[in-house]
Amino acid sequence: MRIEVLHGPNLNLLGPREPEIYGSGTLGEVDEGIRSVAAELGVDVDILQSNHEGVLVDRIQETSGSADGYVVNAGGYTHTSVALRDALVASGRPFVEVHLSNVHGRERFRRRSLLASAALGTVGGFGAASYTLALRGLVRHLEDSNEE
Amino acid sequence: MRIEVLHGPNLNLLGPREPEIYGSGTLGEVDEGIRSVAAELGVDVDILQSNHEGVLVDRIQETSGSADGYVVNAGGYTHTSVALRDALVASGRPFVEVHLSNVHGRERFRRRSLLASAALGTVGGFGAASYTLALRGLVRHLEDSNEE
Amino acid sequence: MRIEVLHGPNLNLLGPREPEIYGSGTLGEVDEGIRSVAAELGVDVDILQSNHEGVLVDRIQETSGSADGYVVNAGGYTHTSVALRDALVASGRPFVEVHLSNVHGRERFRRRSLLASAALGTVGGFGAASYTLALRGLVRHLEDSNEE
Amino acid sequence: MRIEVLHGPNLNLLGPREPEIYGSGTLGEVDEGIRSVAAELGVDVDILQSNHEGVLVDRIQETSGSADGYVVNAGGYTHTSVALRDALVASGRPFVEVHLSNVHGRERFRRRSLLASAALGTVGGFGAASYTLALRGLVRHLEDSNEE
Amino acid sequence: MRIEVLHGPNLNLLGPREPEIYGSGTLGEVDEGIRSVAAELGVDVDILQSNHEGVLVDRIQETSGSADGYVVNAGGYTHTSVALRDALVASGRPFVEVHLSNVHGRERFRRRSLLASAALGTVGGFGAASYTLALRGLVRHLEDSNEE
Amino acid sequence: MRIEVLHGPNLNLLGPREPEIYGSGTLGEVDEGIRSVAAELGVDVDILQSNHEGVLVDRIQETSGSADGYVVNAGGYTHTSVALRDALVASGRPFVEVHLSNVHGRERFRRRSLLASAALGTVGGFGAASYTLALRGLVRHLEDSNEE
Amino acid sequence: MRIEVLHGPNLNLLGPREPEIYGSGTLGEVDEGIRSVAAELGVDVDILQSNHEGVLVDRIQETSGSADGYVVNAGGYTHTSVALRDALVASGRPFVEVHLSNVHGRERFRRRSLLASAALGTVGGFGAASYTLALRGLVRHLEDSNEE
Amino acid sequence: MRIEVLHGPNLNLLGPREPEIYGSGTLGEVDEGIRSVAAELGVDVDILQSNHEGVLVDRIQETSGSADGYVVNAGGYTHTSVALRDALVASGRPFVEVHLSNVHGRERFRRRSLLASAALGTVGGFGAASYTLALRGLVRHLEDSNEE
Amino acid sequence: MRIEVLHGPNLNLLGPREPEIYGSGTLGEVDEGIRSVAAELGVDVDILQSNHEGVLVDRIQETSGSADGYVVNAGGYTHTSVALRDALVASGRPFVEVHLSNVHGRERFRRRSLLASAALGTVGGFGAASYTLALRGLVRHLEDSNEE
Amino acid sequence: MRIEVLHGPNLNLLGPREPEIYGSGTLGEVDEGIRSVAAELGVDVDILQSNHEGVLVDRIQETSGSADGYVVNAGGYTHTSVALRDALVASGRPFVEVHLSNVHGRERFRRRSLLASAALGTVGGFGAASYTLALRGLVRHLEDSNEE
Amino acid sequence: MRIEVLHGPNLNLLGPREPEIYGSGTLGEVDEGIRSVAAELGVDVDILQSNHEGVLVDRIQETSGSADGYVVNAGGYTHTSVALRDALVASGRPFVEVHLSNVHGRERFRRRSLLASAALGTVGGFGAASYTLALRGLVRHLEDSNEE
Amino acid sequence: MRIEVLHGPNLNLLGPREPEIYGSGTLGEVDEGIRSVAAELGVDVDILQSNHEGVLVDRIQETSGSADGYVVNAGGYTHTSVALRDALVASGRPFVEVHLSNVHGRERFRRRSLLASAALGTVGGFGAASYTLALRGLVRHLEDSNEE
Repeated sequence: MRIEVLHGPNLNLLGPREPEIYGSGTLGEVDEGIRSVAAELGVDVDILQSNHEGVLVDRIQETSGSADGYVVNAGGYTHTSVALRDALVASGRPFVEVHLSNVHGRERFRRRSLLASAALGTVGGFGAASYTLALRGLVRHLEDSNEE
Repeated sequence: MRIEVLHGPNLNLLGPREPEIYGSGTLGEVDEGIRSVAAELGVDVDILQSNHEGVLVDRIQETSGSADGYVVNAGGYTHTSVALRDALVASGRPFVEVHLSNVHGRERFRRRSLLASAALGTVGGFGAASYTLALRGLVRHLEDSNEE
Repeated sequence: MRIEVLHGPNLNLLGPREPEIYGSGTLGEVDEGIRSVAAELGVDVDILQSNHEGVLVDRIQETSGSADGYVVNAGGYTHTSVALRDALVASGRPFVEVHLSNVHGRERFRRRSLLASAALGTVGGFGAASYTLALRGLVRHLEDSNEE
Repeated sequence: MRIEVLHGPNLNLLGPREPEIYGSGTLGEVDEGIRSVAAELGVDVDILQSNHEGVLVDRIQETSGSADGYVVNAGGYTHTSVALRDALVASGRPFVEVHLSNVHGRERFRRRSLLASAALGTVGGFGAASYTLALRGLVRHLEDSNEE
Repeated sequence: MRIEVLHGPNLNLLGPREPEIYGSGTLGEVDEGIRSVAAELGVDVDILQSNHEGVLVDRIQETSGSADGYVVNAGGYTHTSVALRDALVASGRPFVEVHLSNVHGRERFRRRSLLASAALGTVGGFGAASYTLALRGLVRHLEDSNEE
Repeated sequence: MRIEVLHGPNLNLLGPREPEIYGSGTLGEVDEGIRSVAAELGVDVDILQSNHEGVLVDRIQETSGSADGYVVNAGGYTHTSVALRDALVASGRPFVEVHLSNVHGRERFRRRSLLASAALGTVGGFGAASYTLALRGLVRHLEDSNEE
Repeated sequence: MRIEVLHGPNLNLLGPREPEIYGSGTLGEVDEGIRSVAAELGVDVDILQSNHEGVLVDRIQETSGSADGYVVNAGGYTHTSVALRDALVASGRPFVEVHLSNVHGRERFRRRSLLASAALGTVGGFGAASYTLALRGLVRHLEDSNEE
Repeated sequence: MRIEVLHGPNLNLLGPREPEIYGSGTLGEVDEGIRSVAAELGVDVDILQSNHEGVLVDRIQETSGSADGYVVNAGGYTHTSVALRDALVASGRPFVEVHLSNVHGRERFRRRSLLASAALGTVGGFGAASYTLALRGLVRHLEDSNEE
Repeated sequence: MRIEVLHGPNLNLLGPREPEIYGSGTLGEVDEGIRSVAAELGVDVDILQSNHEGVLVDRIQETSGSADGYVVNAGGYTHTSVALRDALVASGRPFVEVHLSNVHGRERFRRRSLLASAALGTVGGFGAASYTLALRGLVRHLEDSNEE
Repeated sequence: MRIEVLHGPNLNLLGPREPEIYGSGTLGEVDEGIRSVAAELGVDVDILQSNHEGVLVDRIQETSGSADGYVVNAGGYTHTSVALRDALVASGRPFVEVHLSNVHGRERFRRRSLLASAALGTVGGFGAASYTLALRGLVRHLEDSNEE
Repeated sequence: MRIEVLHGPNLNLLGPREPEIYGSGTLGEVDEGIRSVAAELGVDVDILQSNHEGVLVDRIQETSGSADGYVVNAGGYTHTSVALRDALVASGRPFVEVHLSNVHGRERFRRRSLLASAALGTVGGFGAASYTLALRGLVRHLEDSNEE
Repeated sequence: MRIEVLHGPNLNLLGPREPEIYGSGTLGEVDEGIRSVAAELGVDVDILQSNHEGVLVDRIQETSGSADGYVVNAGGYTHTSVALRDALVASGRPFVEVHLSNVHGRERFRRRSLLASAALGTVGGFGAASYTLALRGLVRHLEDSNEE
């Protein structure tokens, strides 16, 4: 089983960037945590960070044949990108929307997600652990689906 | 560490109730899954289901001295209860909002949560696994907070 | 055939309560009228009034195995209760939303019903007769469904 | 006692028109049902179907002297016609708004009625029986008013 | 100079119709008053009342070559008819929107006019005198335009 | 009979001010026209222009004992002054809202009047003639009221 | 194959009517263009213009048995007629919504179409060519459907 | 004279609960203050706190015969309960809406009260003193009404 | 301790002005009541009424050094004046928003207050007693603050 | 004459991507169809697909000197890109907005186009034929403009 | 060249007033800075502060013949005064809207400016420097206009 | 001191692009003006134009260690990019939002800025001078901050 993990814009800044909101771990440490849980669950993960909406769309298209699902923290594109939503839906794979912070308790414009209504599920507010919880949930879902 | 798990109205119907939305496991099976992960994590859990808003508020008040956090699937009260929100905030404990289904992909009135902006985090869309992911995330958060 | 009739909050006050809006008959007289039409139609009716949202939800759950349908005047909960809607939908039985007065001609907040979009049908504005019209309509619907 | 029954646009298509929404009876059969209940209740009925808003307004004006009340399924004009509302109010007679389907569970634009707030009552969702329930309710109301 | 006066739906009911809102004069008396002021001003008037939106549109089209302007009380069509607006604009003639009552102090849906933003001006609230004031204003405007 | 005419802010600029919207007559010429029609109708008029909301409110209060009605072009205060509305309503006299231009065809914020729903009537779009039409309408209304 | 072409209110004015928006061709010339492309495509066309909503609804009902599809420029009724929408949907035939001008670049009330969400497709902004493009698109669609 | 004082959900937590918003006095101390002012004013008070909407509705119904008025701090139910409003209106007694904090300066959802438009008056922002001010105001009102 | 009491526009009309809404006492009587309670509480009061927004702002600025708090009934300016709010906030003193009537039960535009979210508290609906209740509440608050 | 055809994000997936919405032809087949009609019309076409908003903007800028017009299916960027709109307007060339599906019948967020109000025209709902219809319409428009 | 600088309500309080928002300089110091830059640019400035909307309108009217442009910080009137906007537009001179603080990052009601859409430009967020930047920008604009 | 100047999409077209809105200077001339003022102020500037949202985000991230502040004209991305806002906020440096034209007087969608509420300040409407005013304001702010 192979899971594609996507980090959207500004997530490469984790650690120095507003640690009171996003936590003090770096993106490298977040990725390490993801890989460690992936190993525990026995699944492969590919991880990409990009500030470019088009690069994220390209990657979803390129991996839709090989990935079994997506864990996506689209950052600021969560609230503004129909293109990302369309790419994820077109992949035919389930995806989980992830946020480090609890977006419901922040600025009004962060409450609207263009991805959420097409997602399998959402996880937010647990810092770096949001990713690993999403990964666990997605893998569990895929295993259940395969069993049926 | 002690975690209070609250199931809101109609969650006692799990299994027979619209299984294409909520899954086919019963509430007993869900609770078993929660208890099993709690044991794995080494935490105590108390679980209550009620169709009565007031009973849920009472329970939060009664346990705010003993519980370290709350995992709450308030069901229909998620969208309509300021009283529940106030009780959770008054407890001074972190809580996680949980949903079996992905509420963002359902009726419009389910998209508004009166709890979410006060929550530590939210998990939804993974069926019964939403609870255990929430429990993992909450316990991780409490451990991190204790370490600081 | 068995029909469950539910009266929501403040309907026990009928008669003394604002008779220019709700009519001057008491709830006892309303129930008598319902029972009389039920007898004419050859169906059993169970009737419950409660001011407690949770009690109404409980009753719907307890009767979903035995009732063939519901006639529901949820009073003030019509406009605020997702829990009642969820219980009625979970019952898998058709229900009719009833109002004594014509809610469309009153305060703005009474125009929004959380139940109506899930109902078989709605009847309002005929005073006590709203219930018996609803009962006739529901029984007719159930008979037609059984014939198919 | 004389009741005017009005069918708005496209109701002449009943039967062939989207039977999963409107039922499979024809308008002739609906009218027969209305006449049969009218006979049972001992009242006269006049019935008109028109696709023309102006024709419906004309008819209301012409009959306001002779009719005791109106049973109106204005179809698409329910949501767009102030002229029909004004004609019904100007008649000085009570009217009941009728719908075959449950408009609350359909497209958003069908939820707004320009007639409802001026009506005696509303009945919807029971197919052809919506008309006869409305007729029963209206006649009961007129009898009660006469008694006072 | 020739002015076309148009009365929309239900204005033929003036007198008996809700006199506390519309005054007790009949449409005949209103028309007499219009003709009398027209004579004083030395202009010809044509007057039409119709409950049919299409008839009103037809008349505007037929008279756009001969009329110098329009005095229009579109009644309920004021709030719902783009077709009437388009016909009036297409005529290339100025028109005045007239109301017997003050629509700003009535139901919310009467506050929106689809005609007003394309009108030369508006007059409302003076009962039958609204028409003659409108006629005076329109004739004055046409005289001023001719002088330039 | 005595009528108070009030000109709000910036109306003293008439003539030089945006003549394509407001016409090329000065306020003096407008007032002359008002006085001439007042003489024709046999009524007294008092006229005040002020850029100060408070001065306009003061004047309404001072004249409410002597004036039989008000002709008010509140200019920019039309859209923003509850104080003016309250003063006019408190006077217990009928008032007419006047505009030189057709406010419905201009900026969105000019479409909302805080005065209109409390007015006897409204006249707009006829340039200086809006005032004299309003005066005619108001005097006619007062005469009709006196006759009753 | 037979296509019904419907022109709504004021389209009979084409040519003289605001040519900067609608072009300078007359309706006769538009119809000639439609007939010429129909001949090229080997399909029959029937064309009707009416200012009456009810006449347009009647025609759709009368032709639903013989027409294979509809090309509809409902003019002002596009934005206000649920009756037309219901008639087109009831016909069970695909229809194309056509506009001469680009309605998206005009008044706000022209942006809302009650027809569009039920249409096969929409074409607007090409003047008279909008009709022939719509006809080509509709015929292509019907041919593709027949082949399947 | 007898006044019923109602405390809604979570008000039993006063003191420990967010003292920077609600003050540091306990509910017992608040009630003592109310009783002391009641004694000063020579009126009887009954006081009830409940987290259950239904219990509050029940109490209003049970006391509507004996109470002369209500002082109500409905807490979170202020913003969500039509049932409470209906019960208070049905009692036929005046009531005052009370809040410890100034709800206008807090979260947006606290600005909407379902009770306020039916209340005699509102008092908020004075901490525990809000109750005694409300009591004084209500008693004064009742005394004035009795005198008339 | 010195309290500044401000009456906004039209409050000088109390007594004759719509007594069914505002009560029959004159402003002089209201002020007498305020002075009497001030004497009871041992505080000085200064009272100003003005119809001029600017005069009210000036007074707040002039007294911000000497006043300990403000009791403000801004009348119509409550709903429209950012300038008054800014002046009150700039004074650095607590203020109470007062209304004679219950604004929540009146016109929609009276429900929005630009002052309330910056106030210490609000009191409304008790007629003249609203002022004295506000004074009591404000003085109590200032005494409590001084004690701390 | 040279026309630039632009395909936005995810259109490279045509064929495999949700064929029930977008049809089963591949982008290569769509482009072939465009080239074939271009040849029939005697015009040159350049075609670009990109998932990158910036690349699409770059291309519009680079071709604004050589292209006579644009046929644009901006996909998800239709609803979110002011940059694309600005580039198209800055080109000074007419453009047609194209959609494969009928966006008016899909999710709410697809109904808003940031491009449409600046377009020459729009074509949608005809699958691959939308492009060739748009091309025909655009070329016709350019030919007509050249003739003038 | 002569520039009129206008300070609206509460700007005379600068320095003591909420220095964390508005800076600690007094209005005298702000004016000194403006005069110093005016001298550098070789232009005359007149400066007025008033808390009275009417006084500001009067001043604009009085100076429209002599001033070449306006620098306006209307304070609270920015958000509520159509009268000021109308006066500025009527002056026929360009004006710049100035704010000390960044109004976009403050309360919601400060985001709406009634002046901005009619302004030459806007400058905000630079404290006292906002005025001198505005002055530089306005003078540059006037010089460029004169050169043309 | 080093300031990063960012030009968003389509700003490279300055000069030929809609000169009546944006002025006739080219981007090269704008940059020259910026460099000249920077030299006058003794600060370094780096300037980048890109049509790619991601490139702009990348540049902000790369320069956040070396730049003291940002002058940003995000063009169309002003209204749609949360990613840019997040990057600017994450930089921890103050930034100024710049526009050539006065966006408040243009299309509605240009009135909403996702950047403004996080900016130090905003400058718009002065053409190329908007940049140099912004630069002056930003440098002044940085100098003041350094002094403290």
